[in-house]
Amino acid sequence: MKDQNISRKALVANRQSLMRTFIRPENTAARDTLVKYMEQILFGLHDFLNTHVGITEELSLKELSERYKNTLISENPEKMLADVITDLIEEIAPHAVNVASPFFVGHMTSAIPFFMVHLKTIVAALNQNVVKLETSKVLSVIEKQVLAKIHRIIYRKEDNFYNEHVQNIQTSLGCFTENGTLANLTALWVARNSRFAPKEGFEGADKEGIYAAYKAYGIERSVIIVSQLGHFSLKKAGGILGIGNRNIIPIETDRTCRIDIKNLKEKINELRKSPVRTKIIAIVGIAGTTETGTVDPLRQIGEICVENGIHFHVDAAWGGPVLLSDKYRHLLDGIDLADSVTIDGHKQFYMPMSSGMVYFKDPCKMDSIIYHANYVNRLGSVDLGIKSLSGSREANSLILDSALKIMGSGGYALLIEHGIETAKSFAEEINSRPDFELITPPELNILTYRICPIELKRELTGSNDTQRNAINERLNEINITVQRLQRESGKSFVSRTTLKTYKEHPESIVVLRCVIMNPLTDIHILRDILDEQEEIYSSFEVRRP
Amino acid sequence: MKDQNISRKALVANRQSLMRTFIRPENTAARDTLVKYMEQILFGLHDFLNTHVGITEELSLKELSERYKNTLISENPEKMLADVITDLIEEIAPHAVNVASPFFVGHMTSAIPFFMVHLKTIVAALNQNVVKLETSKVLSVIEKQVLAKIHRIIYRKEDNFYNEHVQNIQTSLGCFTENGTLANLTALWVARNSRFAPKEGFEGADKEGIYAAYKAYGIERSVIIVSQLGHFSLKKAGGILGIGNRNIIPIETDRTCRIDIKNLKEKINELRKSPVRTKIIAIVGIAGTTETGTVDPLRQIGEICVENGIHFHVDAAWGGPVLLSDKYRHLLDGIDLADSVTIDGHKQFYMPMSSGMVYFKDPCKMDSIIYHANYVNRLGSVDLGIKSLSGSREANSLILDSALKIMGSGGYALLIEHGIETAKSFAEEINSRPDFELITPPELNILTYRICPIELKRELTGSNDTQRNAINERLNEINITVQRLQRESGKSFVSRTTLKTYKEHPESIVVLRCVIMNPLTDIHILRDILDEQEEIYSSFEVRRP
Repeated sequence: MKDQNISRKALVANRQSLMRTFIRPENTAARDTLVKYMEQILFGLHDFLNTHVGITEELSLKELSERYKNTLISENPEKMLADVITDLIEEIAPHAVNVASPFFVGHMTSAIPFFMVHLKTIVAALNQNVVKLETSKVLSVIEKQVLAKIHRIIYRKEDNFYNEHVQNIQTSLGCFTENGTLANLTALWVARNSRFAPKEGFEGADKEGIYAAYKAYGIERSVIIVSQLGHFSLKKAGGILGIGNRNIIPIETDRTCRIDIKNLKEKINELRKSPVRTKIIAIVGIAGTTETGTVDPLRQIGEICVENGIHFHVDAAWGGPVLLSDKYRHLLDGIDLADSVTIDGHKQFYMPMSSGMVYFKDPCKMDSIIYHANYVNRLGSVDLGIKSLSGSREANSLILDSALKIMGSGGYALLIEHGIETAKSFAEEINSRPDFELITPPELNILTYRICPIELKRELTGSNDTQRNAINERLNEINITVQRLQRESGKSFVSRTTLKTYKEHPESIVVLRCVIMNPLTDIHILRDILDEQEEIYSSFEVRRP
Repeated sequence: MKDQNISRKALVANRQSLMRTFIRPENTAARDTLVKYMEQILFGLHDFLNTHVGITEELSLKELSERYKNTLISENPEKMLADVITDLIEEIAPHAVNVASPFFVGHMTSAIPFFMVHLKTIVAALNQNVVKLETSKVLSVIEKQVLAKIHRIIYRKEDNFYNEHVQNIQTSLGCFTENGTLANLTALWVARNSRFAPKEGFEGADKEGIYAAYKAYGIERSVIIVSQLGHFSLKKAGGILGIGNRNIIPIETDRTCRIDIKNLKEKINELRKSPVRTKIIAIVGIAGTTETGTVDPLRQIGEICVENGIHFHVDAAWGGPVLLSDKYRHLLDGIDLADSVTIDGHKQFYMPMSSGMVYFKDPCKMDSIIYHANYVNRLGSVDLGIKSLSGSREANSLILDSALKIMGSGGYALLIEHGIETAKSFAEEINSRPDFELITPPELNILTYRICPIELKRELTGSNDTQRNAINERLNEINITVQRLQRESGKSFVSRTTLKTYKEHPESIVVLRCVIMNPLTDIHILRDILDEQEEIYSSFEVRRP
């Protein structure tokens, strides 16, 4: 104890001890502790997560919050390094969420291959900043190469095209971002600037702003169109970009949760004839909606965009990596018509949180968002920060580059195919159980369903509107309760959402949502999850008065 | 060789082998390779970087690019895992930049304490997504706590205030972002929405857009004011937010590189009287400019903002952590007047690339950027993604939280003080050398200077405008050349930039820029850097015809 106190004082008292903390563990005991945990994490990741993470009983948010209320920063170190790390693993991690569990099928965050943690460690150690060449060098070059590799699986252009652009310092095939939200924002920022490009007497929307742009183009409103299942980041982008989020126009989907092309065409015509003079900045197609995993008819949307001279953006944050599967690539047919495409790295590329990407068909498209400064990002250099929403950025492209080499496109294809095919089996299982109702069958690897006990199912048949509403309200309550109780019991997690106007359900209904991306999640586990839901439902139904 | 081929095929051919790659190294040899590198990185970080990174002779960008031109993704794994990692360490890292070298003083990217890499590894392993509680749980709670801790060193409010807000699910003291650019964008997005808040007949700028906002508020233009030394992310934010980047109004600085308050007041008056009806969205004060490290007179700007009802944003991306030093906190006097503050994590908090933060004095200020969705971020929950520019985000707050515990504010203070005091000694050294000219003395830990041989210094004295321009052009050439040759020789790196209208230099001049943040950088190293510059200059001066 005395020793520890001395060390603590020494740590802040002089440069020498600070240097020690900066450079290596303070003593052998500290080193041993770190070695122990690092070995567990790096070479037994999944066991480590199962034994350390999310293993506590459900603690209410209120109880948890009570533990983290101290807002003072201690002047002296609170604890020795080894103690801080031990606390982190033994006291904090148990209250995190084991998203790597094969029973955790509620969100798009899942298990990652163990080597991804090694790669992230290397990236952190190198600590490069790809905002400019002088702080990243080869990593900027590699980012351009990886962007070209993924661009190629989207657009499938000729060798010549890629040879010309892969390392071209004047052009950009895309950009790494931190997530899909920032990728979508980047794409729509580019689309907005292209729509309100400089022309005589006007220097462009980015320079002059939206008000001047509307004046110059003689309009009063601009809009972006997307299906009602579009991700909320699109609405957010509308707000940020000064278009107004109410001008992100939702189009009703058809019975398969895809944008209804007839509705889309009608909306375009309606906007054309609007007394408020309006320009359409972009139409967004979704390749894997967040809620249902469905893919819009990309080719049809793309053709409408070409015909009407509208920017076509595809939000493939979820579905993009399906392009690596020969077997299922056709599900994204038409994506090559997109002017821009969003793909997330931390979703189906199985990269650690967080990484996104945005791609552009035209290698000069990003010229409309060039920003530079004297001390960084000199024009005409390869500095990646010249055309990028973000400033400083870590070299995440190295992780994707290495993963593609380690697994090959074939390895990724296996992961993708496992998800799609397991989801199909799961849908069959749901259909085979009388007390469940499949709501949206999986097109990729996401499906929604609900608990709908056979007696209520019967009552629904032939009920009038009022009756149906009452039954659905009761079903909503049941599904909300079962989902919550299952989450709280700590073994399994499915998420829930509310879907509008689907099939025979013209009103909003609460559904359970499963995302099958963990290769360890198989049909047996999914059956267990349904079994548990049945049990939970039975147990509280029994208690009903 | 045969074995390897079999393994490769097996890897993509079946689920079993994929699972192996997913879960652990493919064989003992692979494990041994990974163990070797991970041990070097995690327990000998600085030695590892010195022996592996940036150790090659300068390779031209052209040569480097030639090596990374293949744009095809192999279907089968290109190499075994261990080979990919070996290539990464032995072939790629040598061409990265050793930003951790104490001789690398050109940019704001530097050495980080070795334990930061451990923390990043743990964060990657946990793979939490703080966009919502269901994928992060305790990490969302910790983020709120860390935000309150840093808020407290900025605003120094009472215990009651922090007790009320630290874990309040309705209010937000700030948000982690990925970098200062996104933090500045978030702050100005909030400022814009507050300036064009909902009122009768108008639902706010975020919902209705900039054009409707200007109509509702009876204006034609809105602006943001900042000194001419403002970071280029502010201009970018102006473009993105639909204000127009030409409406980011630069104010000339005084002779100490701080915003000139007289100029600022005049500009406000001028804008008030402008025939184009204009609103000022925000005034930005800089706490540590990127080029010179100087701090604007924050209190004076803050008082002007209060008086005029204007949002006061402080860009303390660089200087924020100076608040942890009792000795130098006074340099940021007045920062508590700021409505919002940007601080970077990967700069003077010594976190790995990349992390930023934005803080708000008013815990309800971020309400103007609320976005939510049914499947994620339910209103009234603690889901951090409700008020955030980004969507998915890694749990970087855990790194800062742990680092504060490991080093204490006192440890950070030592780092900050070392930088400021070493920069002061360096300035004295430059002043003492006849062939150098100190251009901007360090206020924090950044300074600029140039090579200015004694004979040219004499010529400058008493020269007329034309003569001065000619001499300065020659000096610019000299400094550009020396900086480049020094970088290419591979030992030391200072950056260069162009400064306008500084002191007796009314024209733009090229300066060398040093950022002293690496605790291993001391005055001896800085003298070596000057010696090398003198040598380089002498050697090419000798060769001049």
